[in-house]
Amino acid sequence: MVDFNITRAAHVEFGVTDLARARAFYVDALGFIEVDRDNETLYLGGLEERDKYSLVLRKAKSGGANHIAFRVAAAEDLEKIARLYKQHDLPTRWIEANSLESGQGKALRTHDPSGLAVEFFHEIEQRDRLLQQFDKYRGANIMRMDHFNCQVPHVQSAFDWWTQKMGFMLSESMVTDVGEHIWAAWIHRKQNVHDLALMNGIGPRLHHAGFWAQDTQSILRACDILASLDMRNCLERGPGRHGLSNAFFLYLRDHDLNRIEIYTSDYIIADPDFKPVKWPMSHPGRATFWGHQAPKSWFEEAMLLQNIHTGEFLPTQDPIEPGQPNTAH
Amino acid sequence: MVDFNITRAAHVEFGVTDLARARAFYVDALGFIEVDRDNETLYLGGLEERDKYSLVLRKAKSGGANHIAFRVAAAEDLEKIARLYKQHDLPTRWIEANSLESGQGKALRTHDPSGLAVEFFHEIEQRDRLLQQFDKYRGANIMRMDHFNCQVPHVQSAFDWWTQKMGFMLSESMVTDVGEHIWAAWIHRKQNVHDLALMNGIGPRLHHAGFWAQDTQSILRACDILASLDMRNCLERGPGRHGLSNAFFLYLRDHDLNRIEIYTSDYIIADPDFKPVKWPMSHPGRATFWGHQAPKSWFEEAMLLQNIHTGEFLPTQDPIEPGQPNTAH
Amino acid sequence: MVDFNITRAAHVEFGVTDLARARAFYVDALGFIEVDRDNETLYLGGLEERDKYSLVLRKAKSGGANHIAFRVAAAEDLEKIARLYKQHDLPTRWIEANSLESGQGKALRTHDPSGLAVEFFHEIEQRDRLLQQFDKYRGANIMRMDHFNCQVPHVQSAFDWWTQKMGFMLSESMVTDVGEHIWAAWIHRKQNVHDLALMNGIGPRLHHAGFWAQDTQSILRACDILASLDMRNCLERGPGRHGLSNAFFLYLRDHDLNRIEIYTSDYIIADPDFKPVKWPMSHPGRATFWGHQAPKSWFEEAMLLQNIHTGEFLPTQDPIEPGQPNTAH
Amino acid sequence: MVDFNITRAAHVEFGVTDLARARAFYVDALGFIEVDRDNETLYLGGLEERDKYSLVLRKAKSGGANHIAFRVAAAEDLEKIARLYKQHDLPTRWIEANSLESGQGKALRTHDPSGLAVEFFHEIEQRDRLLQQFDKYRGANIMRMDHFNCQVPHVQSAFDWWTQKMGFMLSESMVTDVGEHIWAAWIHRKQNVHDLALMNGIGPRLHHAGFWAQDTQSILRACDILASLDMRNCLERGPGRHGLSNAFFLYLRDHDLNRIEIYTSDYIIADPDFKPVKWPMSHPGRATFWGHQAPKSWFEEAMLLQNIHTGEFLPTQDPIEPGQPNTAH
Repeated sequence: MVDFNITRAAHVEFGVTDLARARAFYVDALGFIEVDRDNETLYLGGLEERDKYSLVLRKAKSGGANHIAFRVAAAEDLEKIARLYKQHDLPTRWIEANSLESGQGKALRTHDPSGLAVEFFHEIEQRDRLLQQFDKYRGANIMRMDHFNCQVPHVQSAFDWWTQKMGFMLSESMVTDVGEHIWAAWIHRKQNVHDLALMNGIGPRLHHAGFWAQDTQSILRACDILASLDMRNCLERGPGRHGLSNAFFLYLRDHDLNRIEIYTSDYIIADPDFKPVKWPMSHPGRATFWGHQAPKSWFEEAMLLQNIHTGEFLPTQDPIEPGQPNTAH
Repeated sequence: MVDFNITRAAHVEFGVTDLARARAFYVDALGFIEVDRDNETLYLGGLEERDKYSLVLRKAKSGGANHIAFRVAAAEDLEKIARLYKQHDLPTRWIEANSLESGQGKALRTHDPSGLAVEFFHEIEQRDRLLQQFDKYRGANIMRMDHFNCQVPHVQSAFDWWTQKMGFMLSESMVTDVGEHIWAAWIHRKQNVHDLALMNGIGPRLHHAGFWAQDTQSILRACDILASLDMRNCLERGPGRHGLSNAFFLYLRDHDLNRIEIYTSDYIIADPDFKPVKWPMSHPGRATFWGHQAPKSWFEEAMLLQNIHTGEFLPTQDPIEPGQPNTAH
Repeated sequence: MVDFNITRAAHVEFGVTDLARARAFYVDALGFIEVDRDNETLYLGGLEERDKYSLVLRKAKSGGANHIAFRVAAAEDLEKIARLYKQHDLPTRWIEANSLESGQGKALRTHDPSGLAVEFFHEIEQRDRLLQQFDKYRGANIMRMDHFNCQVPHVQSAFDWWTQKMGFMLSESMVTDVGEHIWAAWIHRKQNVHDLALMNGIGPRLHHAGFWAQDTQSILRACDILASLDMRNCLERGPGRHGLSNAFFLYLRDHDLNRIEIYTSDYIIADPDFKPVKWPMSHPGRATFWGHQAPKSWFEEAMLLQNIHTGEFLPTQDPIEPGQPNTAH
Repeated sequence: MVDFNITRAAHVEFGVTDLARARAFYVDALGFIEVDRDNETLYLGGLEERDKYSLVLRKAKSGGANHIAFRVAAAEDLEKIARLYKQHDLPTRWIEANSLESGQGKALRTHDPSGLAVEFFHEIEQRDRLLQQFDKYRGANIMRMDHFNCQVPHVQSAFDWWTQKMGFMLSESMVTDVGEHIWAAWIHRKQNVHDLALMNGIGPRLHHAGFWAQDTQSILRACDILASLDMRNCLERGPGRHGLSNAFFLYLRDHDLNRIEIYTSDYIIADPDFKPVKWPMSHPGRATFWGHQAPKSWFEEAMLLQNIHTGEFLPTQDPIEPGQPNTAH
C-alpha cells in the first residue's frame, strides 16, 4: 500500500549554456513568466501556477536535465518516500531548504530503479497567480507544468515501480502488436492523462517536459512567433494532435537542445476505476492522430540526466524492446 | 472523517413538456449525443464521457429538476452515505438498478439538510467515448458534465454539510463586504473549480447544471447556431468570462426554462492545500470578469426540485442573506 | 459618372485630453502600434497596414473627431473631388503636405452634404508592415482600419451623395418595417461590407471608427485584458455577432468617450452586381444576431465632428426618422 | 489596355471515379454544401457563396481537372475576351447556357498561352447564401472559392499574359536567388492575395484549387475529422502558415488525387498601387513560414487539364527553370 500522496509533476531543471539566449526563447518568445533570477539561474513559471517556479534554467556547460520534481501533499510524505527508496537500496539525498532552489523547502532527491533523477518536495514559496492578469499573457500562454516524459531501457519495470510503489495510475498505454508488451505508458497522479510517461528507449533520459498552453490557438501563435524571431530551428515536431492523450501538441528544442512540449486539451480522469486506453504500435493515428511522421531526432535524441550526488551525467543503456514505432502513414 | 469517496458531479434529470422540442434544442442545436431513448425519456451525454448519460430529459407537466447525481468510487460508499444521512434524520430512498434510469446500478436518493434532491450511485453502463470521433462533434461540442449550482436559503449550513460531512473542498467563495459572511461557495471533488456551487437564494432550487464545452470557440458557435434556428430566447446570459472560476461561460434556458451553463477553461486544483480564492461581493469583475450585468431572471429564477418520495416539487424558503449582488459596473 | 477612385477608409483623428492615458488604452491594452509621436500627437496603426498611421490621437480639450479620411487611387483624383464639392457649393480646404499630419501628402478636407468632416488624400509615407512579425502582436491584434459609421439626420440624402456622386456601392441596409424607408446603409469601396455606414440619428456625428482584428479570439482577449487593467468601463457593447455584416464585434469607448469598434470576419464582395442584403428594423437578429440589446448610450451618444476651417465642433440636427430600433428580444 | 473586368476565381471541375466516395470526402468530411446533383455530377459550394456552385465533381475514368473558371462583370466581357484570344490564335469554344454546367449561362472556354483550360462566364443561377445558417456549418466550414494554383513551364510568359492582357495585378512573387528570375507569381483580381498563382513546373497542370475556410480552428477541425474517418492519407501537407500570402493552410488530396487547399486569413489589397512582396527562393520561411518541408508529392504531382475540344488530357512540357525550391530548414 502506498502511504504517501504525490500530488503532481511540479518542476524541471535544465542546463543552458547562455542564460540570455535561453531567456529570449522561454520568456520573450514563449511567454514563460520570469519570477526570479540570479547570476547563474532563471526561475520561470506559468500563468496559472502559484508555486514560485516550474522551470529552472541553470548556467551549465551543455544542455541536459538536472532533475524532475514532484510535489507531495505533506512534509511527512518525504520521510515515507525516503524510507521506501532506502528499503530498495536506491540512492537518496536530502537538499536543505533554499540551498539549491530559491524558495523551496527541504527536498529529497533520488534515483528511481531506472536511474531517473527525481526530486520530491512539499514546501515551496507561493506567488500570486497571474491567471486573471491577461495583460501578462504572451507567446504560447503557458499556464502550468503538466508532465515529464522519460526514456528508460525497460518500461515494464519502470511502470511497476511507479504504479505499485509510488501510487501512479495508468491512463493510456502503447503495446507491441505481437504479445502486447508494454512499449510506453502514460501514468498520472493529478486528474488528467499524465504526470509521467515512460517510453522504451536509451535511458535513463528525459525526453521532454510538458507545459500546458491555454488553448490550440496559443500553440499556433507560438509557431508564428518563433518563426518571426528566426527561431524556426527550435520547432521540432507539430503542431498536431496526439492520438494518445488526444492533446494538441508542439515539440520545441531550445538552443541547447533541451526539449519541451507545449500541450493542451487532453481530458479529465476523475474516477479511480477509469478503464485505460490501449494503443497498438501499428495504429496509424496513435502518435500523431492526423498521421504525420515524427522526425528522426524526436525518436533518437533526449536529455541526459545528472547524478544526484556527483552532478555527472548518468550513463545510459540500450532499450530491451528494439526498434521504434513506425509513424509513417 | 469522511470514509467514502464521491468522485464527481455525474448527471442531472430535467422535466420537459415536449421531448421532440427538447431534442431539437439539446441534440440538434447544442450537440449533446443521444445515447438512448424511450417514449418518456431521452438519455444524452457528452463526447468525452463513458458513463451512459449525463443528462436525462423526462416527459413532465413542466420544467424542473428531478435530482442531481454524484458518482462514488465504490459500491460500499453508498451504504456509508446512507448511514450518514440516517444518522442526521435525513430522507433516503434506494432505487433499484435499471428501474428509473436505464443502465444505472443501485442508487441512493436523499435530501441534504437544505432539501436538495441528490442521488449517489456507483455502477453505470459504460459506452465507448466519442472523444476522437470528431465527425460527431456538433454545436457547442459538449464534452462532459461539469457541475451543479444550487440555491439554498442558508449557504453557511449547506457549505458545512458538504465540506465537513461529504468531503468537498473549497476552491472559491464570495463573501459579503461587511463581515465576510459567505454568500456563495464553489466546492469540488474532482480537480477543477467545482462539482457543486452553493448560492444564497430562495431554495432549495437548482440554479443550473454546468456542462463542459471543448473551447471558447465552441461556445460562440453555440450562440450562432441558436440564433440561426430562431432560438435566441434561449440565450439568457453571456457569452462572457467569469471572475469567479475564470471560466468562459454561456447560460441557456430550454423551452421549459430549465437552465444549463456551457462552461470551459477554468483551472486545475491538484493540491489538497490549495488556498481558496475569496471575492468580495462588490468586486466589479467577480460575476462577469468583463463587468457585464446579469439579467434579472438569472438572479430570480431557478428550477424547483422534486421530493424523492412523492415527486412533488419541494416548497422553498427565502434566503437568510437578503438582496443580490450588484453586478453593474 | 464618377471619374475618380476612392480606394478605402484610411484613418481617423480623435481628440484626447490625456495622451499618456490614451496610449495606455490604445497601445498597451489594445495593441495598436505606435508609429510616431510628438508632444501633441500619437500616430498609431495596425499590423497589416503600410500607411504610416490609421489612428491619430491629438491632445484636445475634450474627446471628439477631427475628421475621417479616405485614400484615393491617384493624386489627380483629389482635384476631381475638389471640383465636385465646389460644384455643389460644399466647403473645401487644401491641407499642405506634412503640415497637419506627419508623413501625409497634400490632402483635401471637405464637409459632405450632411456636414461630415471628410479628408481625401493619396500620398502617405509607407512603413514596413508587421504582418509577419508575430512577436509584435498584442491585445486585440489590430490589423487595419476597416470603416466609419456616421450618424446623419437624413440617411437617404447622405446615401444618395455617397453612392451616386462618390462611387460607393450598397452592401446591406436596414429599412423601416412600414414603407421600407432606408434607416441605415452600409456602403463600400474596398471589397468587404463597408468603408462607410450611414445611420439615422442626431448628426452630423461620427458614431464609431471600426478597426479589423485578426480573429474572434483576439476580440475575446481584448475584453480579458481591459478587465485585467481595470478598464471595464471602456467595454460598451459586445462581444457579439452582428446580423448586419455578419461580423464579430466589440464596441469600446476610450476615457474621452471616443468610440471604436473592433470588428472581424464579415465577407468579401467581389462582384459589382452583388445583390444587397435588406434587413427590416424589426428583425430580432439584425443588430446583434444573438438577440442581445445594445445599451442606451450606443444609440444616443456619438462623437461630434470639427469644422474643417474653424476647428469648432459642428452643430447637430435631429434626425428625420424618429425613434430607434427596438433591439430587445 | 484591358477593356473587360474579370471579378474573381469562381469554380473548378474535377473528375472523380466514384461519386459516393467523393461526396463522403467533400460533403460529409469537409462540409462543402451539396447544391445539386445528377447521375454524373455533384455541384458543391461554400457557405458564403451565392453562385450555385464553386466545385463540380464529374464522374470520370480518373482524377484530373476539366477547367478552371473566372467570373466576368458583364456579359459583353465574354465577347471581348473571345476576341483577344482569337487575336492571339488561341483556342476558344462557346458553351451553351445550361448545357454542360447546370445553372450556368453562356460561357467561353479557352486555352491560355500556357495551355491552361480556362472558362469565363457571367451568368450563373443564384442561391440563398448560408452565411448565417450556422447550423449548416460542418467540417472545415468552407466559405468560398479563393484561387487556382497552376504549374506552367514558363512562368514569365504566363505572368505577362495574365497581367498585361487579362488585367491581373501582382501581390507576391518568388524569385531565383541569382538574377531574380520570377519562379512563381501570385496575382489577383478580387482584393486579396490571389485568384491565380503561376508556379514553375511541368505544365500545363492545375496544382490545386484553394477554398477559403472560416478560420484557423476550422482547418484544425478538418484534420481531426479526416483522421476520425480514417482518411489520414488525404492530408498531404500542413496545417501550417505560408510565408507567401501569410495564409493558414492545409493541402488535401481526394481519393482520385485531385488536390485542394483549405486556406484562410491572408490580407486585403485595396490599393491599385500596392507594392508587391518579393521572396527569394532561399528564404527559410517562404513556403511554410514555420520552416516545415513540403512532401515530395507536393512538388512533383499535379492535376492534368483537359483539352476544351476533345476532352483528352493535355500533353505537358518540362519547366524552363530546373529544380525545385529547397524548403528544408
